[in-house]
Amino acid sequence: MAVRSSVSIGPVDAALRERANRVIPNGGYGHMASGGLPAGYPQFIGRAEGARLWDVDGREYLDLMCSWGPIILGHRHPAVEEAVAEQNQRGDCLNGYSPKMVELAERITDVISHADWAMFAKNGTDATTMCCVIARAHTQRDLIVVARGAYHGAAPWCTPNPQGIAAADRANILYFDYNDLESLEDAIGGKEGQIAAVLVCPHRHDTRRPQELADPDFARGVRALCDRIGAVMVMDEVRTGFRVDLRGSWEAFGVRPNLSAWSKAIANGWPLAAVLGEDSLRGAAGSIFSTGSFWFSGNSMAASVATIDVLTTTPFLAQLERSGKLLREGLAAQAAHEGFHVEVSGPMSMPLLTFADDDDFERGNEFATLALRHGVFLHPTHNWFLSAAHSDQVVAEILDRTSAAFSDLAQTATVGRTQSAETGS
Amino acid sequence: MAVRSSVSIGPVDAALRERANRVIPNGGYGHMASGGLPAGYPQFIGRAEGARLWDVDGREYLDLMCSWGPIILGHRHPAVEEAVAEQNQRGDCLNGYSPKMVELAERITDVISHADWAMFAKNGTDATTMCCVIARAHTQRDLIVVARGAYHGAAPWCTPNPQGIAAADRANILYFDYNDLESLEDAIGGKEGQIAAVLVCPHRHDTRRPQELADPDFARGVRALCDRIGAVMVMDEVRTGFRVDLRGSWEAFGVRPNLSAWSKAIANGWPLAAVLGEDSLRGAAGSIFSTGSFWFSGNSMAASVATIDVLTTTPFLAQLERSGKLLREGLAAQAAHEGFHVEVSGPMSMPLLTFADDDDFERGNEFATLALRHGVFLHPTHNWFLSAAHSDQVVAEILDRTSAAFSDLAQTATVGRTQSAETGS
Repeated sequence: MAVRSSVSIGPVDAALRERANRVIPNGGYGHMASGGLPAGYPQFIGRAEGARLWDVDGREYLDLMCSWGPIILGHRHPAVEEAVAEQNQRGDCLNGYSPKMVELAERITDVISHADWAMFAKNGTDATTMCCVIARAHTQRDLIVVARGAYHGAAPWCTPNPQGIAAADRANILYFDYNDLESLEDAIGGKEGQIAAVLVCPHRHDTRRPQELADPDFARGVRALCDRIGAVMVMDEVRTGFRVDLRGSWEAFGVRPNLSAWSKAIANGWPLAAVLGEDSLRGAAGSIFSTGSFWFSGNSMAASVATIDVLTTTPFLAQLERSGKLLREGLAAQAAHEGFHVEVSGPMSMPLLTFADDDDFERGNEFATLALRHGVFLHPTHNWFLSAAHSDQVVAEILDRTSAAFSDLAQTATVGRTQSAETGS
Repeated sequence: MAVRSSVSIGPVDAALRERANRVIPNGGYGHMASGGLPAGYPQFIGRAEGARLWDVDGREYLDLMCSWGPIILGHRHPAVEEAVAEQNQRGDCLNGYSPKMVELAERITDVISHADWAMFAKNGTDATTMCCVIARAHTQRDLIVVARGAYHGAAPWCTPNPQGIAAADRANILYFDYNDLESLEDAIGGKEGQIAAVLVCPHRHDTRRPQELADPDFARGVRALCDRIGAVMVMDEVRTGFRVDLRGSWEAFGVRPNLSAWSKAIANGWPLAAVLGEDSLRGAAGSIFSTGSFWFSGNSMAASVATIDVLTTTPFLAQLERSGKLLREGLAAQAAHEGFHVEVSGPMSMPLLTFADDDDFERGNEFATLALRHGVFLHPTHNWFLSAAHSDQVVAEILDRTSAAFSDLAQTATVGRTQSAETGS
């Protein structure tokens, strides 16, 4: 690539990074460490509202990450904030449950087709881990089968980084290839009677590759296999929940899990996770011990009830699909106009744009940098998230800015573009 | 016992329990399930303020549980709530860190003597688990040594209930007896080169037994042993943090851990956990991957900064010690006056009252029931927690109410009391 574009880090952000480096390992950690983003992306965020956010240096961006998923109605949605404020007047973390826990359990089991009961926690990882424990208690078997490369959380049994992980932590985990029933059969071959659960995401959203939707036959095959061998089918809806189908992401395929794990978007940014299950798993769920100091706090549950109210009383999903389609078509047209071959993969509400012949994401990083410069916060290797705040008008504004980014990219990447056009399909 | 006292569950609480039973396994779970409390204790809490709470039926109690630890300044402390409201105006869960994370890391490493750096999470279990992972990454060893019966959280490697737990989940955990160096030496005997960490609480606070303070020689022995075998010494401060010594609970013994786990009280009820470590562990801490959707949310960090401000600028611990001493002496005098042999165990700020010759906690449950009837919310088998809201005046009010409870206990338990007086020391 002839020229490598850059955005300079703002002075407030830079000063905070310097202070952070003294008192936090690497100055930060986890999925929000900006190390995974192109240089120039801000590490520290000042504020957000609707589909817009401002970094600590006051630079404004249209947001395509939605706090990595949790924001589904837009930042600081008034109805959600009002519900939280009302609960918080009474108290958040109390000596027992708040009535909101019952209201939320009723509401969420009403919305999600397969769910007869609910339990709540704080992290997506809490929910996926509890699903494994419940499945083991139910089947009195130990093995859990997961797709190779799938992200199910950051506990020792599933974190993508092997540092500090002992062999025993994963002794009971088997791996298969997503969308490949044969590989699933191979993974369990001869161990059918030891499989507690198959844990699967509604689509393949591993980082650093285009997303891949589930083949309906794969979905139905997983369900049939679990029924055949007496294993619990667990769906990890942490990332997808409420963005694909309010009833459950494989509902359109006629496939329902026995257990499911939820977090991120269920309370529009307030910290909450949920395990949902059908009646056959109720006894096992009631037999385990899992808890946390803040798992019963009312604020997040009030937020979730308010979020579900909005999701179920507005044409939310239709608008999300529409916005996603407008964005996808707009991005594809802009790329084509400048001669770039791109793929926008995944569900409409969770797109990811990748460039052809860009295995090292050099062009993806360049585009993300230019998008940032023009005021769009997106990610080159991790799926994006849309929210109800992404109206037609906001999408149009985003496309105005990405159009400028593509135009800049065409100017700075003439050599690369020509190569891509030659090798692209 | 001649008469078994009871308190009837209020109608609002009863109706919520009935609804909860339909949509939540057992109608509730975890440490806040009132099943562990005597019958009559409310399950659902309506609101709280300072040292006082009200159940959903409007009954008022003076609170000796402080939400099982998180409330250290009193419910809804104005300075904490104000700090949260200010951060929340900007946004809680954003696309990156808030500046509050840096401020908090600076403040907390300034207060806690051994800490050079900080990482934050949501659950106490997140923090204890991360400590194990960091210790393993640092030592490249697998084994973790813990005290038999100690509570370090609710993940598969440590949850007290074996349902749904596979043998592999605990394959790398060794057990010793608290306050017993010989048993610790026995546990590691022959495996010295495989021990990643010794994980220990500042005192023994297992449920269903009087608390036991650490023997200073035990504390120093744990430190010396870790140094000798090259293991990481990890202190679990989740329950004790800030209530014993602001600098770290074994500071008075001259003993500092290499790593420590914190949660509960560090943000006065807002959901937060922390891992603190010394410089030698910084590389290992920076090498692991652990994260959560809400781990970087600013509200709880703002709450924690405000909490630390109050803790460090007021005579907080002196007042907590004083309140605890007044309460302990008052309870002991009341018990003696009515002819009961009781023990009030644990640190001044975390008392637990148990009766002599009451292994099944029959008398403890009876007393807890009578305390509730007179308006004191306490626990018969789990340590209590005091807060800054427990002023001399509040303690006097609590003692007025417990005096009435002891008096009732004497009337309803004549037979039992005589037996106890005969067998007591």
